[in-house]
Amino acid sequence: MNTAESVPKTPSSCSLSPLNLEEFRRQGYMAIDFIADYYQNIEKHPVLSQVEPGYLKNLFPKSAPYCPEPLETILHDVQEHIVPGITHWQSPSYFGYFPSSASTAGFLGEMLCTGFNVVGFDWMSSPAATELENIVMEWLGEMLTLPKCFLFAGNGGGVIQGTTCEAILCTLVAARDRMLTQIGKDSIGKLVVYGSNQTHSALQKAAHVAGIHKTNCREIETTKSTSFALSPESLRLAICLDIESGLVPVFLCATIGTTATTAVDPLRPLCDVANSYGLWVHVDAAYAGNACICPEFQHFLEGVEGAHSFSLNAHKWFFTTLDCCCLWLRDPKALTKSLSTNPEYLMSTHATNSEQVVNYKDWQIALSRRFRSMKLWLVLRSYGVANLRSFLRSHVKMAQLFEHLVANDKRFEVVVPRNFAMVCFRALPLPTSKEVSENGMAVYGHKISYDQECSNQLNQELLKSINASGHVYLTHAVVAGLYIIRFAVGATLTEDRHVFTAWKVVQEHLDAITGM
Amino acid sequence: MNTAESVPKTPSSCSLSPLNLEEFRRQGYMAIDFIADYYQNIEKHPVLSQVEPGYLKNLFPKSAPYCPEPLETILHDVQEHIVPGITHWQSPSYFGYFPSSASTAGFLGEMLCTGFNVVGFDWMSSPAATELENIVMEWLGEMLTLPKCFLFAGNGGGVIQGTTCEAILCTLVAARDRMLTQIGKDSIGKLVVYGSNQTHSALQKAAHVAGIHKTNCREIETTKSTSFALSPESLRLAICLDIESGLVPVFLCATIGTTATTAVDPLRPLCDVANSYGLWVHVDAAYAGNACICPEFQHFLEGVEGAHSFSLNAHKWFFTTLDCCCLWLRDPKALTKSLSTNPEYLMSTHATNSEQVVNYKDWQIALSRRFRSMKLWLVLRSYGVANLRSFLRSHVKMAQLFEHLVANDKRFEVVVPRNFAMVCFRALPLPTSKEVSENGMAVYGHKISYDQECSNQLNQELLKSINASGHVYLTHAVVAGLYIIRFAVGATLTEDRHVFTAWKVVQEHLDAITGM
Repeated sequence: MNTAESVPKTPSSCSLSPLNLEEFRRQGYMAIDFIADYYQNIEKHPVLSQVEPGYLKNLFPKSAPYCPEPLETILHDVQEHIVPGITHWQSPSYFGYFPSSASTAGFLGEMLCTGFNVVGFDWMSSPAATELENIVMEWLGEMLTLPKCFLFAGNGGGVIQGTTCEAILCTLVAARDRMLTQIGKDSIGKLVVYGSNQTHSALQKAAHVAGIHKTNCREIETTKSTSFALSPESLRLAICLDIESGLVPVFLCATIGTTATTAVDPLRPLCDVANSYGLWVHVDAAYAGNACICPEFQHFLEGVEGAHSFSLNAHKWFFTTLDCCCLWLRDPKALTKSLSTNPEYLMSTHATNSEQVVNYKDWQIALSRRFRSMKLWLVLRSYGVANLRSFLRSHVKMAQLFEHLVANDKRFEVVVPRNFAMVCFRALPLPTSKEVSENGMAVYGHKISYDQECSNQLNQELLKSINASGHVYLTHAVVAGLYIIRFAVGATLTEDRHVFTAWKVVQEHLDAITGM
Repeated sequence: MNTAESVPKTPSSCSLSPLNLEEFRRQGYMAIDFIADYYQNIEKHPVLSQVEPGYLKNLFPKSAPYCPEPLETILHDVQEHIVPGITHWQSPSYFGYFPSSASTAGFLGEMLCTGFNVVGFDWMSSPAATELENIVMEWLGEMLTLPKCFLFAGNGGGVIQGTTCEAILCTLVAARDRMLTQIGKDSIGKLVVYGSNQTHSALQKAAHVAGIHKTNCREIETTKSTSFALSPESLRLAICLDIESGLVPVFLCATIGTTATTAVDPLRPLCDVANSYGLWVHVDAAYAGNACICPEFQHFLEGVEGAHSFSLNAHKWFFTTLDCCCLWLRDPKALTKSLSTNPEYLMSTHATNSEQVVNYKDWQIALSRRFRSMKLWLVLRSYGVANLRSFLRSHVKMAQLFEHLVANDKRFEVVVPRNFAMVCFRALPLPTSKEVSENGMAVYGHKISYDQECSNQLNQELLKSINASGHVYLTHAVVAGLYIIRFAVGATLTEDRHVFTAWKVVQEHLDAITGM
């Protein structure tokens, strides 16, 4: 036995250093190849994972390994055991929820963010992290034609949050505190927040976290006749009723592109109502806000100057990967007044303490923050405004294509007008024998009376069957009692052919269910 | 003019697709090389960025580019304009705040997370994301010897949050709601939360966000005699006083390894006191919890079974890169009761709705969540328990080395006993002329009376001078009126030689200041 070999290497031996640069390069390339191969072969997997609950537990040991394992083994396990448990949001046949849009530039930006791995809580902790965020938020704000009052140049300003939930929570806390300063801190139980019954559940959750009573969250009814947009008159009515009851309206969350149907709340009249009663208006444009870099969608933002804050999720439909929620504020001081903490151990002797710089820790819940502006910056520069518009328009076009296919099949209907790249549709109920026309053809459509419950069941069964096939993934919503199927285009790899295939899958599954 | 060339290429041409796989590979390798080169040359940069506020604004255009720019140009700008604005948390000479520890495995895990880019809000949205998180949280919990009641195997369970602030906010909201269910929702103004004056500001911020009155946040005094640990008797006294005043104690945040001095609050007696008054106890072990994978540090966790929740930041000192805050709970239902939302559009027909699976959206503030368990899993497997312990021990040893160097220089003192890999020290005040001994040598040390203000000023000046040099980066704290300098070892690239150099820098700057 060779003596040199018999001496066990100490675990801290060079090759095992957690940041050995030779290994970093070798393994980094391997991971790049692994991910590229994953994208290359992504269509071979069922879009919706088909595993059963608890599947992974039995595939891995009960405890962490005592000794190191090579990356090759780990990547093998990712391929064999993790990938089957993934619902492939990056699949070109993923049309569920809203997109979670990836891109090479977004990926590289995340790599640089992770590589530098700074904890950018204040300016000095990495000036570039703060200043690049200032810059890209101005760039993007300008691309959206946000009013200058939302930009740093107009004494407003933008910040990157993790998610819309955080953005709403932060702005709601600012609004809450502004109001409590006027009416007294013990009146928190009187505060009321408003949204429609289409507003994202993030509002409810944020309100609850912020100590607003659950009974003081208004979900104002919307109707199909106004495409599920919040009516300013209904808002005024709700506010007046609350004031009459001695409650204090404090916050309205308006939505550009609701989750269920991409409904657009009319900003200008809503802001007029809200402002006349002193409410803070937050505009949640998580998904659809991204489209507003295209001039043809900017009319949806009309009246936004009456709002106090505006947010969109660049990780939904702007190629930046999760998480990247862009929030602009007209009065950042209202936010920082609520969220500032200045413990001694964070007080530097540098410019951080001056008014010259932004300290983003005071614009968010958490102290620590990643260098997220990097990925937004890389996306903006790598693609440029022209291409970014063109990418989004190509998704809209594909949604139009799908809409057209649906509209031309009498067995289906498009439920609400399409605003962006999402189509809401449903299979119409089967005609009963009485409703078969004289020439023996079934008569579908609105004219036929039917049981809504049956119709909902049919669509539920249809969606379940489609998703179980693994060929495509779609999700649903229920509006005004109607179970609808949502078809959201936006996965970066999606092309026309995937839309055609998806439609064929939908048709075939309806055929199978209805036995035709 | 060539006609083919005169036709402008459509922006959506193949080579510009945001996920062209050839480009993904090519650019991915480039980014890997860029980051490896950055680490290779990291010592050439001043650790603390030396730029002036607003430096970046003038280096970049006012608007986003209309046309795409090549990655080569962008990376060039990163090198020329971003890197100088970075405070290099990955530098081996970074000893500030707490570490933000990187590793190849953590980096690769982040790459895979970004590559899959799933939005893992519930089980079905990617079963592997939830189940891998379940598994690694069990592994890590076991490594820390957390009591079984904190593990899924004991009806508790773990979740990865972004930061400690979020972990505290979530647990505080759960504690708040549990109490308000008993005493009525309108009694939120009576709730009191407790910590010491060494507790992280995250508690204050979380309490404020959750609607707890600022006047109801107790920062109980600590003293140097007990190394700034929270005294159970002081806690009991504070609780009793509040109860006598008609207030309702609800939450205690105990700390293992405070930010200022890594003080350790005595868990067992604190939990005994808190539990006898029905408080929720959260243990914030953000930094030091990581060390508890080594048996020699596990005694600090004694009594943790009396707590309700426990968190540590793997992104601080466990090689996972920001963000990765691991939170374990004894009763996850208390959390999910407060944070569950189940809008129709998230209701799947699958196992997600059953009790069989975990839906992590109900364990956190946000709905969307990244596949963060991937990086923790890669770190655990790539290094193994033995190496991970050895890495942490090497940091502790380097801190011991620094402590030794300080202790052997009469002009300095170690202010509090070192618990982990952080040394708190300060330069002792200069002797006055009267205090120069007969042989002309200055007499330093405790015996000399001095003005604390002068001493603080000296250390403040010393630290400023050290950091301005760019050779190393250290930060400060003030405890019991004493300005101290913190030396936190933990950057992955740090070796003994960097500690020696750092000490030389400290000495030289004191020499320069005192003119010796």
